[in-house]
Amino acid sequence: MSFDLEKTMQAARDNTLQNKFNRLRSNKAFELFVVGIIVFSALVIGAKTYDIPPLVSQVIVITDWFITLFFLVEITIRFLGEPHKRNFFKSAWNIFDTLIVIVSLVPIEDSDMALIGRLIRVFRVLRMVSIIPELRILISSLLKAMPQLGYVALLMFIIFYIYGAVGSFFFASINDVLWGDIAISMLTLFRVMTFEDWTDVMYETMEQYPFSWLFYVSFIFLTAFAFLNMIIGIVVNVIESENRARQLEEEGEQPNRADLESQIQQLQASVNELLRRDQESSKREQ
Amino acid sequence: MSFDLEKTMQAARDNTLQNKFNRLRSNKAFELFVVGIIVFSALVIGAKTYDIPPLVSQVIVITDWFITLFFLVEITIRFLGEPHKRNFFKSAWNIFDTLIVIVSLVPIEDSDMALIGRLIRVFRVLRMVSIIPELRILISSLLKAMPQLGYVALLMFIIFYIYGAVGSFFFASINDVLWGDIAISMLTLFRVMTFEDWTDVMYETMEQYPFSWLFYVSFIFLTAFAFLNMIIGIVVNVIESENRARQLEEEGEQPNRADLESQIQQLQASVNELLRRDQESSKREQ
Amino acid sequence: MSFDLEKTMQAARDNTLQNKFNRLRSNKAFELFVVGIIVFSALVIGAKTYDIPPLVSQVIVITDWFITLFFLVEITIRFLGEPHKRNFFKSAWNIFDTLIVIVSLVPIEDSDMALIGRLIRVFRVLRMVSIIPELRILISSLLKAMPQLGYVALLMFIIFYIYGAVGSFFFASINDVLWGDIAISMLTLFRVMTFEDWTDVMYETMEQYPFSWLFYVSFIFLTAFAFLNMIIGIVVNVIESENRARQLEEEGEQPNRADLESQIQQLQASVNELLRRDQESSKREQ
Amino acid sequence: MSFDLEKTMQAARDNTLQNKFNRLRSNKAFELFVVGIIVFSALVIGAKTYDIPPLVSQVIVITDWFITLFFLVEITIRFLGEPHKRNFFKSAWNIFDTLIVIVSLVPIEDSDMALIGRLIRVFRVLRMVSIIPELRILISSLLKAMPQLGYVALLMFIIFYIYGAVGSFFFASINDVLWGDIAISMLTLFRVMTFEDWTDVMYETMEQYPFSWLFYVSFIFLTAFAFLNMIIGIVVNVIESENRARQLEEEGEQPNRADLESQIQQLQASVNELLRRDQESSKREQ
Repeated sequence: MSFDLEKTMQAARDNTLQNKFNRLRSNKAFELFVVGIIVFSALVIGAKTYDIPPLVSQVIVITDWFITLFFLVEITIRFLGEPHKRNFFKSAWNIFDTLIVIVSLVPIEDSDMALIGRLIRVFRVLRMVSIIPELRILISSLLKAMPQLGYVALLMFIIFYIYGAVGSFFFASINDVLWGDIAISMLTLFRVMTFEDWTDVMYETMEQYPFSWLFYVSFIFLTAFAFLNMIIGIVVNVIESENRARQLEEEGEQPNRADLESQIQQLQASVNELLRRDQESSKREQ
Repeated sequence: MSFDLEKTMQAARDNTLQNKFNRLRSNKAFELFVVGIIVFSALVIGAKTYDIPPLVSQVIVITDWFITLFFLVEITIRFLGEPHKRNFFKSAWNIFDTLIVIVSLVPIEDSDMALIGRLIRVFRVLRMVSIIPELRILISSLLKAMPQLGYVALLMFIIFYIYGAVGSFFFASINDVLWGDIAISMLTLFRVMTFEDWTDVMYETMEQYPFSWLFYVSFIFLTAFAFLNMIIGIVVNVIESENRARQLEEEGEQPNRADLESQIQQLQASVNELLRRDQESSKREQ
Repeated sequence: MSFDLEKTMQAARDNTLQNKFNRLRSNKAFELFVVGIIVFSALVIGAKTYDIPPLVSQVIVITDWFITLFFLVEITIRFLGEPHKRNFFKSAWNIFDTLIVIVSLVPIEDSDMALIGRLIRVFRVLRMVSIIPELRILISSLLKAMPQLGYVALLMFIIFYIYGAVGSFFFASINDVLWGDIAISMLTLFRVMTFEDWTDVMYETMEQYPFSWLFYVSFIFLTAFAFLNMIIGIVVNVIESENRARQLEEEGEQPNRADLESQIQQLQASVNELLRRDQESSKREQ
Repeated sequence: MSFDLEKTMQAARDNTLQNKFNRLRSNKAFELFVVGIIVFSALVIGAKTYDIPPLVSQVIVITDWFITLFFLVEITIRFLGEPHKRNFFKSAWNIFDTLIVIVSLVPIEDSDMALIGRLIRVFRVLRMVSIIPELRILISSLLKAMPQLGYVALLMFIIFYIYGAVGSFFFASINDVLWGDIAISMLTLFRVMTFEDWTDVMYETMEQYPFSWLFYVSFIFLTAFAFLNMIIGIVVNVIESENRARQLEEEGEQPNRADLESQIQQLQASVNELLRRDQESSKREQ
């Protein structure tokens, strides 16, 4: 029993610390402070793109390390504050945060790798998304819409691949930079899809193949059509789920019409019973 | 009592003047006249952009002062016509009108400031929006839609900021005009988003970083996706509020189905009572 | 009586001719033939844009006159086939057709006016719209959607006008071709709105006014927003009228829920009457 | 009877082979294998667009023939597996597959025809669409949406034709490459519709005809309007069919309100009968 007591006390002590961290990480002021640090780190990153005197540059390097340290402390608090440690890594956002913190701990001072180091620090701005709930919901709903787009994207890719291959076969000899191989052809086709100087590309090939405008115009129509289909698909999906939600709501708050019908039938049966008895009693009376 | 009478008479006299102004500003003809003056002032502004002989220019300057005076008189009438003076400045449109009138009273004849003076006069055309109720409603509904776009705009800004920083780190040495610092990089990215000669920007960086097309294509996809999300969000919002309005209307004009059910149950109870009594009376008879 | 008979016979005779024309113009084969002639006249117009030998050119001129004659005959048949002559010119399409036929009768052989003559013949292709009912419906629904767009169009124009004036005031000294006066400025802004080489325009003014990108970016945002608003307005309108139509349909084919309620209340009253009598009779019996 | 038995056995034997093929072609693993081969053939096509050493080129030629053979075997299996041979060619997808297989069997080694041969092999990638059911459904729904677009497309064509003819008449002398004849004019107008350097085209003609901007701006408005109309038409169509489907569903699962009404009226009649008898019996009693 003394052992039990000890264990309980230990749990209580643990609990206190955990609770403290838990309360801290749920604290609105703490969250705002973290957002503030992220914004500050974003500003530091932005500042680095300007020509800055060496002294300021020195300050920035130190600030950088402070921010890294702060993020390390913050993620540790959030981890220790989690009642069930396993659940912590079940959230993709926590894994994302931890990865960014760990990677930014790697010391990269090498001039060759300096750009990579900077790149990693830039991704710290993405923590803004993981810390603001509204943005997290936005991203989740975007990702949820993805699978529905899957087959249209596949169809689009097939269209690009076929046109890329045909374009490369026919036009590679005309302009090697635009149609050299299937990869570069697909990039050129993406450019045509965005209408970016697509006529320059077309007029060049029309000199040798006068009917090559059919290639471009049909490609534009096909991709525009597939794209339109994608948008309409999303809109319809959204309206459908909207309607379904409304229908469920209506059914929940109001009795079914079928219920009304069975109630009226029951009532009719009762009245019929009354009629039968009345008839019987009048027969008896006669 | 005599004091009361005096006060009442004073109020009556005030009222008369106020009523007169109030009637004037609600007058349809007066409103049309104000719209006419605004259109005329817009034409004067347009005329100033052409090469005009000095005499006409002189006429325009005088006209300008007449228009300013008219707007001053008009806003004074509307202010005096307001029964509760405090409410006047509760309307954002009144504040907007007053500001424009006051600012255009400032005499700017200095050649350095002439452009500023012209700018202020241009904004008088915006009074068209504040005087036509339909345009006011349009603007209000646009502003109401704003907060919903807030988080998508924030997400868009984060995307721009990250790509701007990355672009500036990697490409500043290639083209300083386009990628010199994070601000100019974001402007270049806005250009890429509008597909404006974006391939020229891309081909330049692809010479040094052959895989930089990934940077551009991924950026275009991300922004297109966020933009699409924004539009769909608005459409869904509109449809939802549409449905809610319709539902409220239906519930208002028609009794609830739950009401029907309770009425039928009450009826059943009455009929059951009849049956019970019938049974009793037949028992008594036997 | 004999006079009456004569009049009736006259009417009958008139009727016969009118009926004949009426039947002719409602004839599907006749309609198809007219469509065929319009297509043929369109082909003739297209052929004229190519270099053609003089002989063919001669043939085309003759064909042209035959087509003009045919259209004259056709419109005459349709006019004579109309039972109430006044109604004929109540249809905007008939006026449109008549105008095109009359104008193409004017002989323009003058070399200066030859282009005008060709232009008039081109508009004959528009008769395709007036003869195919589905296209007529399409155009009508487009025109019906117009008034709803009115205020957004006005707002758009105000935005264009203000930015045009500001652009002309500031940038006229930089590039007179693009910003010379308010009219040419508005055309340049339309170009910016379509994203057509808008950065070239911007970079030029940014050399003198480094913050002029604010002018372009804000303009693009405002017009994009107004445009978006317009599209959403149309979609919502369409959905609303869709819903209203469906609601009317539902109300027509199904009794109102309020009716059901009053019927149940009536039933309750009847049952209550039964209960009252039962009570009375049992009182009497006691 | 012995003959009957023989026939039955023959049918059984046939059936076994047919069943085997039928089971094979419905086999999920087999389908995946076919998809794998199609992807592999697509990769081979892509590889051909790169500079490849002669040895690899040799390997590719052999691989090509193996793929052709495999497709021949696969289509044969699917044909033999079909219980009713006639139904096989009722499916447009089967005809499509068979055509591609047959055409790719034609030996084209001629250098002149090599490009055609390559083209045919590229279309084998399209078999991806015919083998994946989801893509087949997507294409079907796209094709089903086509007829609705018919009249808008016709209207669009008329707009293009008229503007093409007018453009060719007026501007052919200014720029023969862009406005030479009606066909090339329509291609130029398509370019204007995609906003591709349309101002370059406009500024050129504005030098001779200062008001030709009206031609371009009106064309852009008309096509944008027709395009908008097309999109809205599709969306409305989709929402309508959505609503109709939901309505049918509701009517199916719930009794009609009219049914409820007739039931209540029947009930009222029964209660009225009760009242009448009660009255009669009370009269008798008196």
